[in-house]
Amino acid sequence: MENSRPLDALNRARDKKVIVELKNNKQYLGNLKAFDIHINVVLENAEERVDGEVKRKLGSVFIRGDTITIISPE
Amino acid sequence: MENSRPLDALNRARDKKVIVELKNNKQYLGNLKAFDIHINVVLENAEERVDGEVKRKLGSVFIRGDTITIISPE
Amino acid sequence: MENSRPLDALNRARDKKVIVELKNNKQYLGNLKAFDIHINVVLENAEERVDGEVKRKLGSVFIRGDTITIISPE
Amino acid sequence: MENSRPLDALNRARDKKVIVELKNNKQYLGNLKAFDIHINVVLENAEERVDGEVKRKLGSVFIRGDTITIISPE
Amino acid sequence: MENSRPLDALNRARDKKVIVELKNNKQYLGNLKAFDIHINVVLENAEERVDGEVKRKLGSVFIRGDTITIISPE
Amino acid sequence: MENSRPLDALNRARDKKVIVELKNNKQYLGNLKAFDIHINVVLENAEERVDGEVKRKLGSVFIRGDTITIISPE
Amino acid sequence: MENSRPLDALNRARDKKVIVELKNNKQYLGNLKAFDIHINVVLENAEERVDGEVKRKLGSVFIRGDTITIISPE
Repeated sequence: MENSRPLDALNRARDKKVIVELKNNKQYLGNLKAFDIHINVVLENAEERVDGEVKRKLGSVFIRGDTITIISPE
Repeated sequence: MENSRPLDALNRARDKKVIVELKNNKQYLGNLKAFDIHINVVLENAEERVDGEVKRKLGSVFIRGDTITIISPE
Repeated sequence: MENSRPLDALNRARDKKVIVELKNNKQYLGNLKAFDIHINVVLENAEERVDGEVKRKLGSVFIRGDTITIISPE
Repeated sequence: MENSRPLDALNRARDKKVIVELKNNKQYLGNLKAFDIHINVVLENAEERVDGEVKRKLGSVFIRGDTITIISPE
Repeated sequence: MENSRPLDALNRARDKKVIVELKNNKQYLGNLKAFDIHINVVLENAEERVDGEVKRKLGSVFIRGDTITIISPE
Repeated sequence: MENSRPLDALNRARDKKVIVELKNNKQYLGNLKAFDIHINVVLENAEERVDGEVKRKLGSVFIRGDTITIISPE
Repeated sequence: MENSRPLDALNRARDKKVIVELKNNKQYLGNLKAFDIHINVVLENAEERVDGEVKRKLGSVFIRGDTITIISPE
């Protein structure tokens, strides 16, 4: 039964460090604080990376779900 | 329980200064006055930035949700 | 309570001059006569601008919501 | 009350000559015979223009709503 | 009353020869055999044209609605 | 009555060889084993073609509906 | 009856190795652990490939459905 729904995987990653990648190729690394069925996501202690380079430190960031391609625990 | 839904994070940012980034790479900085479940957003005392440069001062601006990638408190 | 929903901001702009910007970078200036929850918009006494230049005078124009990025009172 | 909903403006344009512009920059001029809530549109005595030049005469044309940016009475 | 809904126009074109144009600029000519509210369409005795040139003969073709820009009777 | 709904045409193609074309211009040929109202499709004994050339043999392939432009029986 | 719905094919691939391809041309190979009706997918022991080359090892990866073009068992 474990792992049967995709959102269960996000739930297990809650409060853990994840990488979120967007359709525009930006990456956001941070602690997964919240998500919903649209895959809207909130990260804390986030940083933005482009081509592997850190571009910005962002305390907290809300990412709109429809712009996301993948989410993976670090 | 804190932080469990993404819109809660937007709610805590209400009346605070945020940066909103769009799929077209424009950025809008201003005070978050309103948002809804589509992530339509209203900022006040807003300015538009492109490539980090201020392009325009906008008193109030309505931003359509489906054009937004991220929202982050300043 | 004031300003709590994004459509309230559009409602306060009704009959006032606004600028509407589209994903294709065109801008429409005119008096906001109507809008709906899809952010379909009708302007009157509208003009179209591209790169800041007036291209056309349009008496009345219906703008489909999903093509809009921002709406701002002049 | 007049003009309060965007579809009212389309309704007033019914049977009148309108210009419909698409995301692919094509323009269709013709008499507005029908529309629905998706902004699917039917024009009659239509012609297609690209960059202001008439490309084709089309007796009747059905235009899918999600490809439309603006509709304006001539 | 005639012509009041866009799908009525498609209904009158049923079994007649139509041209269907897609967002990718391909054109399909054939007899309109079926359509639905999503504007999914089935043509028979269809041919595919690109830039006005016949590329392929297709006996029957199902065209997904969200890829269509216009449909016009020949 | 025959042929009145687009999905009827897909149903008649079930277990037959079809070509499925995607928005990214890839083509998949194979036996149509399943489809649903979103036009998600499953082919078996499938091969992928790009510009008319066979690129890969795929035993079974699930194709997400919103990426499909056309489906045609061979 | 077998194979009648596309999601049945995904269900038979559960826990097996699959390749998932995205609109941005990235490929993810891994064991299919979960999927839902939006075709959101979770892979485990995943690796990312671009142009056939392994780019990254990812323990677990959530892939948003609307970015997926095809899923195929290895």
